[in-house]
Amino acid sequence: MIPVREAPIGVFDSGVGGLTVAREIMRQIPKERIVYFGDTARVPYGTKSQDTVIRYSRQIARFLRTRNVKAIVIACNTASAYALETLKEELELPIMGVVKPGARVAARASTGGNIGVIATEATVGSHIYRDYIQSLRPGARVCEKACPLFVSLVEEGWLKDPVTEAVAERYLQEMKERRVDTLILGCTHYPLIRSTVRKVIGEEVTLVNPAYETAIELRELLRREGMDNQGHNKTEENPYEFFVSDAAERFKAFANSILPFDITSTRQINIEEY
Amino acid sequence: MIPVREAPIGVFDSGVGGLTVAREIMRQIPKERIVYFGDTARVPYGTKSQDTVIRYSRQIARFLRTRNVKAIVIACNTASAYALETLKEELELPIMGVVKPGARVAARASTGGNIGVIATEATVGSHIYRDYIQSLRPGARVCEKACPLFVSLVEEGWLKDPVTEAVAERYLQEMKERRVDTLILGCTHYPLIRSTVRKVIGEEVTLVNPAYETAIELRELLRREGMDNQGHNKTEENPYEFFVSDAAERFKAFANSILPFDITSTRQINIEEY
Repeated sequence: MIPVREAPIGVFDSGVGGLTVAREIMRQIPKERIVYFGDTARVPYGTKSQDTVIRYSRQIARFLRTRNVKAIVIACNTASAYALETLKEELELPIMGVVKPGARVAARASTGGNIGVIATEATVGSHIYRDYIQSLRPGARVCEKACPLFVSLVEEGWLKDPVTEAVAERYLQEMKERRVDTLILGCTHYPLIRSTVRKVIGEEVTLVNPAYETAIELRELLRREGMDNQGHNKTEENPYEFFVSDAAERFKAFANSILPFDITSTRQINIEEY
Repeated sequence: MIPVREAPIGVFDSGVGGLTVAREIMRQIPKERIVYFGDTARVPYGTKSQDTVIRYSRQIARFLRTRNVKAIVIACNTASAYALETLKEELELPIMGVVKPGARVAARASTGGNIGVIATEATVGSHIYRDYIQSLRPGARVCEKACPLFVSLVEEGWLKDPVTEAVAERYLQEMKERRVDTLILGCTHYPLIRSTVRKVIGEEVTLVNPAYETAIELRELLRREGMDNQGHNKTEENPYEFFVSDAAERFKAFANSILPFDITSTRQINIEEY
């Protein structure tokens, strides 16, 4: 058994979107090893029910345990919204999602307490962002909007595109009318169309990417628990491992466009067996 | 045991799209009972690998067997492209997909042998339409194009919409330049945006919906095998049963917009157990 400090962090998502969170962890805590799992066989989670998302998240947590992770980050807003509390009760190790860090920074950053949240249908339907923001900042107004097409547009690679802009105009219309001062990119795919969202919503609105704050909070958590890696992975050949439930090649191509280095190997597993 | 003639037909799809095929079967062979399964927990199939689509299709076929179906229709182009041959070898009962009926009618209907196919990435990548059309009509030119955003646009309900039209203009550009005379709607979602496709591609192009031809071929198959229902379901209270792997309510709302009657009950099962 390797010492706990040297064990990897488990990071999971419904697919590739969570790589935007993994990327922030690599930047903010470069000494940590990561085991990433993308549930590419069952993506997307954003239109699924809570029961199903909990069942899938449990299977993934069981898989990550077999890789001896010391902590788990749910790098998917939908799974954070639906499954975090259940997994927290069931697991012995520290686990965190992306919703609370994102909500915290928005509640703090908002100048007028007028906050927008764009996310999947599931995340919006849970009202988890609204409830958490209002618990931190009573009186804040929170406008939530599901933007299901954004995920498909990102996966099609139409990041800066007139079609994507037209879709954003439609989805963000209400946010503009309500003059939100802060907007949470509440789905891990959305930071990839940040510049289109910025163009449509305007320069004066603060955009919040929960991935950044999640990496910072993870660093604090590991220190607090005495679990932070002191730098042993420098001798490791491969500090980052990637697993998927389907079509590893497709995942690799997308990952290489997001991460600052090229992934050399991705392994496919049958997640239904966990 | 009920007599084989009175047993239902199993129809399955990755989600709701296959209801366009079920609808045609209801119209063309109204005496038949149907057990429909929509794999809403794992939709979409169109971006998944062949291994995964075969594994999912096998599970569904096993489930349908427990409902005592007399024949199976794969009402999903991707699953027809990837899994039909495997299931045919493994199952004792008649099974058919939507690809061959669609390809047959296009090969016959095309005036100049210049045929377009729009479908999912998986179906296009398999080249099953091209290969089958050319086996029936050597010398036919076949232009295949994956249109992944169409599924999301249909599920968002933007059927006649400027955004959908802009996306169609982009996807169908090459078809227009090549002046295809016949276009196969090679994904079960696409008939739902038929009028937008029609507007973009022009009046002179023949649009082929494989669902219609599939229902006709199914009727022939059942007669040939002596399996056609002679009308016993008229005494049945509920000739059509619907099962899904997730979020039955969401499925019901969409189904009721496609089918000519309202579904009253939809049951959710855990398909991973089959």
